[in-house]
This record gives sequence, C-alpha cells and structure tokens, in this order.
Amino acid sequence: MTETTELINQLDELERSLYVFHHLSSQVELDAMTAAPIDSAAGRSVVTEYLSKERYAAFASEKTGKLLSDLVERKAELPEKTARQAEVLKRDYDRMKAVPQEEYVQYDILVSEAQNVWLKAKLNNDYASFSPYLKKIVESQLRFIEYWDPDHKQKPYDVLLNEYEYGLTADMLDKFFDEVKQTVVPLVHAITEKGWQPDTEFLNKYAPLEKQRELSDYLMDVLTLDRAHCSIAETEHPFTLEFNKDDVRISTHYHTDSVMSSFYSVMHEGGHALYELHTGDELRFTSLASGASSGIHESISRFFENIIGRSKGFCDFILPKMNELFPGQFESVTEKAFYQAVNTARPSLIRTEADELTYCLHIMLRYEMEKALINREISVDDLPRIWNEKMKEYLGVDVPNDTKGVLQDMHWGGGMFGYFPTYALGNAYGAQMCERMKRDVDVERCCAEGDLKPVVSWLTDHVFRYGCLLDPIPLFNQYCGAEFTAKPYCRYLKEKYSEIYGL
Amino acid sequence: MTETTELINQLDELERSLYVFHHLSSQVELDAMTAAPIDSAAGRSVVTEYLSKERYAAFASEKTGKLLSDLVERKAELPEKTARQAEVLKRDYDRMKAVPQEEYVQYDILVSEAQNVWLKAKLNNDYASFSPYLKKIVESQLRFIEYWDPDHKQKPYDVLLNEYEYGLTADMLDKFFDEVKQTVVPLVHAITEKGWQPDTEFLNKYAPLEKQRELSDYLMDVLTLDRAHCSIAETEHPFTLEFNKDDVRISTHYHTDSVMSSFYSVMHEGGHALYELHTGDELRFTSLASGASSGIHESISRFFENIIGRSKGFCDFILPKMNELFPGQFESVTEKAFYQAVNTARPSLIRTEADELTYCLHIMLRYEMEKALINREISVDDLPRIWNEKMKEYLGVDVPNDTKGVLQDMHWGGGMFGYFPTYALGNAYGAQMCERMKRDVDVERCCAEGDLKPVVSWLTDHVFRYGCLLDPIPLFNQYCGAEFTAKPYCRYLKEKYSEIYGL
Repeated sequence: MTETTELINQLDELERSLYVFHHLSSQVELDAMTAAPIDSAAGRSVVTEYLSKERYAAFASEKTGKLLSDLVERKAELPEKTARQAEVLKRDYDRMKAVPQEEYVQYDILVSEAQNVWLKAKLNNDYASFSPYLKKIVESQLRFIEYWDPDHKQKPYDVLLNEYEYGLTADMLDKFFDEVKQTVVPLVHAITEKGWQPDTEFLNKYAPLEKQRELSDYLMDVLTLDRAHCSIAETEHPFTLEFNKDDVRISTHYHTDSVMSSFYSVMHEGGHALYELHTGDELRFTSLASGASSGIHESISRFFENIIGRSKGFCDFILPKMNELFPGQFESVTEKAFYQAVNTARPSLIRTEADELTYCLHIMLRYEMEKALINREISVDDLPRIWNEKMKEYLGVDVPNDTKGVLQDMHWGGGMFGYFPTYALGNAYGAQMCERMKRDVDVERCCAEGDLKPVVSWLTDHVFRYGCLLDPIPLFNQYCGAEFTAKPYCRYLKEKYSEIYGL
Repeated sequence: MTETTELINQLDELERSLYVFHHLSSQVELDAMTAAPIDSAAGRSVVTEYLSKERYAAFASEKTGKLLSDLVERKAELPEKTARQAEVLKRDYDRMKAVPQEEYVQYDILVSEAQNVWLKAKLNNDYASFSPYLKKIVESQLRFIEYWDPDHKQKPYDVLLNEYEYGLTADMLDKFFDEVKQTVVPLVHAITEKGWQPDTEFLNKYAPLEKQRELSDYLMDVLTLDRAHCSIAETEHPFTLEFNKDDVRISTHYHTDSVMSSFYSVMHEGGHALYELHTGDELRFTSLASGASSGIHESISRFFENIIGRSKGFCDFILPKMNELFPGQFESVTEKAFYQAVNTARPSLIRTEADELTYCLHIMLRYEMEKALINREISVDDLPRIWNEKMKEYLGVDVPNDTKGVLQDMHWGGGMFGYFPTYALGNAYGAQMCERMKRDVDVERCCAEGDLKPVVSWLTDHVFRYGCLLDPIPLFNQYCGAEFTAKPYCRYLKEKYSEIYGL
C-alpha cells in the first residue's frame, strides 16, 4: 500500500465516524423539533454533551490534523474528490480546533438548551426568559470570531457568513439589498396605493387534516420525490433534514383553516429534499454529501415553492386536484382567481408566511439587526424594540407581541448568525438560475402539465450532483454561466406583480 | 475518599454512559418506527454498528467486570439502591460478556435490518423475503442460549424468558395457560352457540383525524399524563418508549373509520407511560430507572385499557365526550349499547385488535410456536402453516394471508423470543392487582367519575416508584400480598362476559 493510499483509507475512516456524529446529532435534533415533549431537555443534555465531546475528540485530534495537512500537501496526487474532501475538512478542522474543547462542548449544550427555552418563550410570549440564553450565544459567537480570525483579516460578521455561504461578504449583501429595496419598496407602495387585493376567503375554509395529508402525498409525487427515501412529518416550523441521500425528511404544519400553508411548505421543503436526494452517489457518507451552501439550497426550495409553485401554469394545473380533494371549497373559483389569491402581496408579521414580494424585507430587517449585534452596535435587550420599529418602517405593520415578532424564528437561539441573508440570496439565485434553465428546458410547459421531471433532471445535472465539490460562488458561476446579480430577481418580481395588480 | 465511595463514583460514570447508549439507540429505533422512509436502512446500519461497538467496549470491558465484581462482593456495605444496581448490571454484564464482541455487533445489525425487512414483508405479504432473516435470528438465539447457560441448568426457552420476566419458567406458563384455556374456551363456545352479538356498526362511522387527536389529548388528561414529559406520535403499530422519566413517548394509529382503535391504543400506551413517568426520581439515569419487567408493565397497560377503559363506569363516563367530539355518531346510542359494543368478544385475526376475552388465545398460539422453535421441534419455514392451523383450531378463523397472520407482529423480527407470554401474564397480573387495589381504592367510583388520580396514586406507591429495585416476582408478591395465580383473571373474565352475553 502506498503512503497516499494509506492516507486515503484513514480519511475514509474519519468520514465514517463523522457521519455517525452527523446522523446521531440530526436524530436528536429532529426528534426535539418534531416529537419530544416540551420538558424533556434533561436527557437530551446528557446525550448532547457526550456527542459533542466524542466528536471533538475524534475530529479535533492531532492525528486528524496531521492527516488533513498531509493530504492537503499532496493535493496534486489525489483524485479530485479526495482533494476536495481534504480541503473542506481542513477548513472545518481549523475552525473547530481554534475553539477550546471545553468551550466547544459547553456551547453545544447551551444551544441545545436555548432551543428548548426559545420554544417555550415563543409559546408564552416571554422574551425575558430567552434573552439570557441569547446573550450567552452572542458572546460565544463574538469569541468564536476572535478564534477564527485572530488577525482581523475579515470584518467580524463576514467571519460568520463564511460558515453558511463561503466567500460571501456584508459588502456584497449591502449592495444586493440596496438593489432589491429599490425594486420592492416602490412595488409594495404601488400595491398599497391601488387599494385592490384578490379575494382569498375561499383559501381559509375548513380543509380536513387527512385530506391535506393526501394533498401532501400528491405534491410529493408531482415533485418526483422518491418516497422510499423521503418521508414527511408534522412540526411547528417546517424544515428539511438529511441523514444521507437515501434518508431525507421533510416536515410540514397542517392548519385546517389554511390549506395553502402546508401546500407551499411541502413545495418548499420538497425542493430542499430533491437537492439532497440527487447529490452524487460517490459523495455519500462523506463531508461533500450535501448541498453546496445555505443560499444555493434555498434557491432550490424557493424555486419550487414560488417560481414553479406560484406560476400561472402550475396553479392552473393544480386547481382541479384541489377541487377533487376539497369538494366545495374551490367550486366557483376561476383559474385566474386562484392564481391571484396564492400570489397576494400584503405586508404581514410572520416571515415564513410572508408572500414572495415582501419576503425579502423580512430578511433585510434580520440581516441589519444581526449585523449590528455582531458589530456591537446594539444589544440583545434592544432586539424587541428595534424589531418592532423596523417592521413598522419597512412593512408598515404593528407587531402585537414578541411571539409574532422577535421570537418567531428559531435561528438566533440556534446560534445561526449569518444564516438569514442566505434566504434572500436564495430567492435571487433562483431567479437567475431559472433564466439560464429556460434556455434548455420548457419550464412553462412543465408547470402547465405538472411534469417536473425535465426540471429536476436539469437541476441534477447542473447543480445537485455536485454536492459540495465546489464552493457556492464558483458553482453558481458555473451553472449560470455568469456572475450573480440581483437583476433577474428584480425583473421577475416587477413583471409578475405588475401583471397581477395591473400596475 | 474511601474505596467504596470511589467504586460508587465509577458506577455512576458507567450508568451515565449506559444512559447515553440507551438514549441514542432508542432515538434511532423510535425514528425508524415512526418517521423514517422505508428504504433508509443504509445510514442506520452505519450508526447501529457504531453504537453497538461502543456500548460493548464501554460495558463488556475488564474494567467494568472488575468494578461490578468488587461492588457485588461488598454488597453488605452498599446503600440498597447501589447494591441493586450492581446486581442488575452484573447480570447484564455476564450475559453480554458471554457473547463474543463481533457476534454481538453483527446480531445488532442483523436485527436492525430484519425489522426493516419485516416492515416491507408485512406490507407486501411476502414471508419468503423475511424468513432468511428470521432463521438467522433464531440461530443466533440458540447460540446465545448456549453462551448464557453452558451447563444446561435451565431449559433452553427458560433462558430466554429470563430476559423479559426474571424467574419465569415454561412450566409456570404451561400451568397458567392450562387454567386460562379451561375458562376462556368454554366462554367463547357459549358465546358462539348463543349467536347474539352487540351492534357495533356505529363505531365504524367516519371520525375526522383532527377530532381523534382531540380525543387522544382528552384521554391523556383523564389518565393524568403530564404532557410536558409525555408526547404522542403516530405509527403503524402503537408502542411506548421511555428515554427517562422526564421524557416518555406513546404512539397511536388513527383510522378514520374506527375511532375506538386509537382510543384503546391511547389507554393502553398511556398505562405504560404512567408507569415510566412515576418511577422513583432517585433511579433516573440508572439501570433501575424503568418498569420491573415486561409482564408487570403489561399488567399496567392492560389494566388501563381493559379493566378501567372497558368498565361499565368508564364507558358511561366517556360517552358524552364521544357525543361532543363526534356529533351524530353516538347520538342514539345508549350507555348499555356503547358498553356492549366496546366489549364485543369475537374471534379475529389480529392480536392487537383482539378483544379482551380471546386475546389470551392469540398469545397462547405464539407461546407454543416460539417454544417449539427454540426447542428445535419446528422450523422457521413451518411457521406460516402452523400459524394458520392453530388460528383455525383455537379461534376458528381462516387466515387469508401472512400479512394478517404470521407477519403481523414485529417481535420475532426484533429477536424478542420469550416476550409474547408476558402479554398474557400481564392481563392476569392486572386482574389480581385490581382485587388487591380495591381494598384501598374505590375503583368503581374512579371509573364512573373519570377521576383516575387515586388509582395512579395507589399504583405509584405500590408499583411504579420501585422501578427495577425488585425483580418482578418478589415485587408482585409484595404489592399483592400473595403469590400469583390465574384465578382472579379467570373469575374477572367469566363474570364480565357472562353478564354481557347473558350466559
């Protein structure tokens, strides 16, 4: 056995043990979010501490450090996949190794507890019970930034952005949000001034739970999701979680008075799931076996939710099915009325229920706040007040309580600073990707016929199969054949909403 | 620090690590049974192998062996709880140590795979795809019996029984089933001869899923289950799983055309959950922190399902609630008609849906078959044929396919030989326990008023809080103040069914 082969074998072993920790942590997290009773954190803490310690011991060891350095050194001799594994793992290793073990473990426990506290705080509209945890998390994040960038080569917030969207900077985001704001705000104003809104009353009639489940099953079929490898659960806050490409989970929330809520959750999470299910076989059980970044992932989920799922063609296609599943509810609804109803743009309180047009403003608000928090310009205690002020300023709405305000999202309690912007970026990535896709695929026909195979196939070839073989920015440039710009997204929103609202 | 204190500290550390493995394995198992997609075994195998190896390494080490021997030796000096921990752990250690590590790990993987194969085989009525796995499991069990009892001090099947009901023997079971048969078979014959059956049609009207969920919530309240520590999920085959006394899960299956199916699943699993939730605080995260045995556990679940849940008093109490939740369905149903309908005794195919009277015959059949299998009197290939013959003989029913026959239960695919008899035993334990309880608690009033607090309180004081501090037989003798006999159970069945059927 050559020394290189021996190193590759060691790498495989490392990847396998990392998979175990990924699987088990995901398992505990999935359960906490979908099934665990509310006061069950005690046992989970014992387990989280164990997993965190073992993972740190297995990964942040001198042995692993030497292995990764050795591999990176002989990069030229390695197969492309192996070289990339070493590169990505070395990046993670350097980040983990920079944090002292005790602090790393304590942080994992803190975040696990904080998520439980957040869930209860949201339920009881009790920001005060959550803020001490959030303060500790922010302090940890600030220390991590020092560990990760001791020479201050980057701006502090950029150090966090790198974890979710490698290569992304606040400067890029400032420019992006400026452009988006210039398109969206005038559109929102014009709609408000016009005063007309589509009739949406029929969407909120009673829709039985078991029929909504049938609808989910149907939509998953339309999305071409392989049910043998992708299941659906119910949860408060829908999400997708992947164990590996043969075991992907989506979740949704059924409201018997709001059938489209779960409909679009399934379309959105289904998009995430498609990505994971179609990553390359050869990447399975390795650190490359997942989507390239949060932003690219979100571009896929929002593409299926909005660009496909809220297109005129797809709405026309789905209406007869809605009629079949919910007799009476859609009886006298025209295709046009259905399309307009699911595309209503109206400023609202909850990000996850926001329409396609105002959604970015919800993200902009969070982006500005978390950036200011990390730059120490504001404090955790200021968040509810600033939240409510910005909601008034950007969306013109009054926030009645923290449950519907600053407590609505789990991200900050999960330590995910730098994640929110990728949601907005995803919308814009998707619009540009769709323009490129249309050169190869008749997307309108696919929507109108509910035949999404050609779309999924294009995405598999151009995006999905690469997993993490490329960083998000080079990957995007490769499949779009151009650098990212906000223009296709702005164009898409302007055309769509001008037409619907007759502006 | 004295040497004994030092040993106790080491024991605490061992217990904590065992808790981690219990928690993680339960987590993976729970997920596989409730949420995982059907073809997701690949990732789970990687993880099961890891957990199995690590658990074996942590538990079956020389260090652990020495620790437990040292503790058992100085039993007299130890606090009662610690002495019992050492005793129980030493028993488990000896069993695990007797199996070679490689074989132990391979067996865990086999069982994990087999459960997946069984689920699919049941779905597709395909016994042939499952039988090779079952053969391997039986072969493993036979080897384990040799490892555990190399000097053949016990009968082979008794060695397996010990794992679920310490101290129980096939001789005791033969005697028990003989007595039960003498009561039940004539009763079943008399009912068949009489030819009259209660009207049950109204039980199978459409009952919306979300209303059945409301019913589950209501029943969990009536059972005094603390929802902060006990959640409910949906699954194909209802079960209860405990992580620790602060984190217990029950599951149920909703059929929109059979509202009482989930009703009695919740009563049954709720009984199991009450037991776990009320084990002693001081036993938490130790090997004593669970119910005393499968049989004692089942006596509690069947007590709540049948002795309480199918009593005349409780039926009268619950009927108005059923009327409220399912308008129309129970409108013209009298209290008597409802009581009779939920107590219909009619030979049927599926154990979990069998009535209280014929249930034991389902178990007797399984007991006889698995005992013969372990005694090498029959083979795995014979099972479907023998199953169908015995179903005809004992219950007079024709089995249409293996899905509704030999494939219906998960136990054998999970390697649980010796488990089934504890179900029958549980029914009988419960009847004798109830006779004893009635000296202290007005059980009839509790049922009639739906006030189960006094019942739960008696059970906590006499049964639950002991966890595994005592073995099942001494525990039973202690709280019943007498040795176990089948008589109270036979008396209970005879009185109840003679009255309902006017025999």
